[in-house]
Amino acid sequence: MTEIAKLGEFGLIRHLTEGIKPKNASTLRGVGDDCAVMHYPDKEVLVTTDLLMEGVHFDLTYTDLRHLGYKAAQVNISDVFAMNGTPRQLTVSLALSKRFTVEDMDELYAGLRAACDRWGVDIVGGDTTSSFTGLAISITCIGEADAADIVYRDGARDTDLVCVSGDLGAAYMGLQLLEREKSVYYQQVDEAKKRGDKRALEQLAHFQPDFAGREYLLQRQLEGMARGDIIARLREAGVRPTAMMDISDGLSSELTHICTQSHVGCRIYEKNLPIDYQTAVMAEELNMNVTTCALNGGEDYELLFTVPIGDHEKIEAMDDVKLIGHITKESLGRVLVSRDGNEFDLKAQGWNPLK
Amino acid sequence: MTEIAKLGEFGLIRHLTEGIKPKNASTLRGVGDDCAVMHYPDKEVLVTTDLLMEGVHFDLTYTDLRHLGYKAAQVNISDVFAMNGTPRQLTVSLALSKRFTVEDMDELYAGLRAACDRWGVDIVGGDTTSSFTGLAISITCIGEADAADIVYRDGARDTDLVCVSGDLGAAYMGLQLLEREKSVYYQQVDEAKKRGDKRALEQLAHFQPDFAGREYLLQRQLEGMARGDIIARLREAGVRPTAMMDISDGLSSELTHICTQSHVGCRIYEKNLPIDYQTAVMAEELNMNVTTCALNGGEDYELLFTVPIGDHEKIEAMDDVKLIGHITKESLGRVLVSRDGNEFDLKAQGWNPLK
Repeated sequence: MTEIAKLGEFGLIRHLTEGIKPKNASTLRGVGDDCAVMHYPDKEVLVTTDLLMEGVHFDLTYTDLRHLGYKAAQVNISDVFAMNGTPRQLTVSLALSKRFTVEDMDELYAGLRAACDRWGVDIVGGDTTSSFTGLAISITCIGEADAADIVYRDGARDTDLVCVSGDLGAAYMGLQLLEREKSVYYQQVDEAKKRGDKRALEQLAHFQPDFAGREYLLQRQLEGMARGDIIARLREAGVRPTAMMDISDGLSSELTHICTQSHVGCRIYEKNLPIDYQTAVMAEELNMNVTTCALNGGEDYELLFTVPIGDHEKIEAMDDVKLIGHITKESLGRVLVSRDGNEFDLKAQGWNPLK
Repeated sequence: MTEIAKLGEFGLIRHLTEGIKPKNASTLRGVGDDCAVMHYPDKEVLVTTDLLMEGVHFDLTYTDLRHLGYKAAQVNISDVFAMNGTPRQLTVSLALSKRFTVEDMDELYAGLRAACDRWGVDIVGGDTTSSFTGLAISITCIGEADAADIVYRDGARDTDLVCVSGDLGAAYMGLQLLEREKSVYYQQVDEAKKRGDKRALEQLAHFQPDFAGREYLLQRQLEGMARGDIIARLREAGVRPTAMMDISDGLSSELTHICTQSHVGCRIYEKNLPIDYQTAVMAEELNMNVTTCALNGGEDYELLFTVPIGDHEKIEAMDDVKLIGHITKESLGRVLVSRDGNEFDLKAQGWNPLK
């Protein structure tokens, strides 16, 4: 294991970004100067940024650094797709406490680079510094779109259809699963310590959490896949959403953003919410309402979008896109129609990082 | 005082960015969607990013939040000037621990907005989240430049002149002064506690550090002014630098970057280093070598640049720009010529945040 101080700031950046070759024509100059330089003569430029803090956004007791890097990049890339754009460049700033080694950063960068390679994105800059406490990761993603293609949150209109890609609530269930296994582990360690049971403690060093049959939930929590494939398929099908967001804080919260900014209401059908079998089983096991998980569980990074009602058949024909309801006049409010036909107000109960 | 949890993430962002109106034609959409949208049909796009961590980059015992916001923005804006560009947009990500109030964030944003107003920069986005520990601030600045105007670090050529704006070492001396007054304060508190002297402790609550005659050092440390005025004057004078950087880690460190990337050497004259009177007095008082402070003290955010020797007279005629030496062949190394004519190797001993 190599101490980071041995390389120093510039040595570490050089080491981590070695061999990164820009793939996009819009990348004129990457890492190594005061700024990265980009060329966007015929497109609009999209910029999004996220700050991830250890203990708040990730827990390194069950997230390995490679997955963390992969997810951190995907989450930002997802925001560019959510504008109907194409991601092109990424900058990475890291603040590290002394417990991290050069090899740890290699892992984190392997994840970042894998996500960037997946979507043809160039890593063009960054900042590496120290932290007295945990790890902080700040990522900025830059993308492009034709002016006419950009989809904002404020374009939803009465009678538009409300659609989501993939399925909902799985990332949240994955988090519950990881938290449960973590507490089981610590409980067993505590008990073994109380008993003074050295043999049990040794065995616990090789503790294997029970994830059989839950692989999908874990993958959804740990990888956070951006849905560029859906953007590409919508384009192929000739569908241009009227409003779009990615679902990071939960469906209810994001629907509220679209409705508020578009000055419309919506009517969503519980029976249409896309939920994976593993999500349903896990919710049952934890005695949680699976609809609540689908509505308010965060980090799915699926796309929520509205399309004109004339695109109904095109949407019906698309794999992995589900029609969950429709847009109404603002005065009708935001309504969830339950399986038994009752109506409820949709409330944004998504994750509030400031509570 | 208002708890941040009361507003929530979106409420806080709304509150902080209320009334921000884009001033630049290149800003199409600011805060409030998945991405900010910008329009750069005729220019290259410049992007720089910085991550500032409490305890590493700033100490809130002597930096107020308004100054911190002001400096955080200036530092990023400075990187765009260092490419010979014009800053246009800024995104701000904050991670806050529970001890911060809405009023604290108002102060921080007042500083950010003052710096942005000073340079005509639009705040176009951000992310606000929580932190278990201290405050983290991540800023990304976006700017523009004509392709032919951009100045990289790798363009310095043999016989070019080496110039710096303003003066060096003052920000570092300001930091020493603040650290000294902080330790004087805590020493007096400790002693009063040991004596059980309640009256002294009450008086210490109104402790007034002695900064008389050192105002310039404090200002340099707390405000971190970007030198857009120098960029404008170079343009007016028809001088295009061949290489340029801003001095954040110390002159020696930055000169090393330019020489390494340009494959050249340099010859710098100690007697030409611009040093303010207050910097010299403070170094004397602290028994430090003032040349070492000017060479290795960080955070001056002055511009270091090289110009063709033919621009000698134009540079000589400019206020607040000093000619400190010249570029040589790489084989001649990086040399500091002392006042008494001795030659020393210039070593980058700048601040290493990872040591």
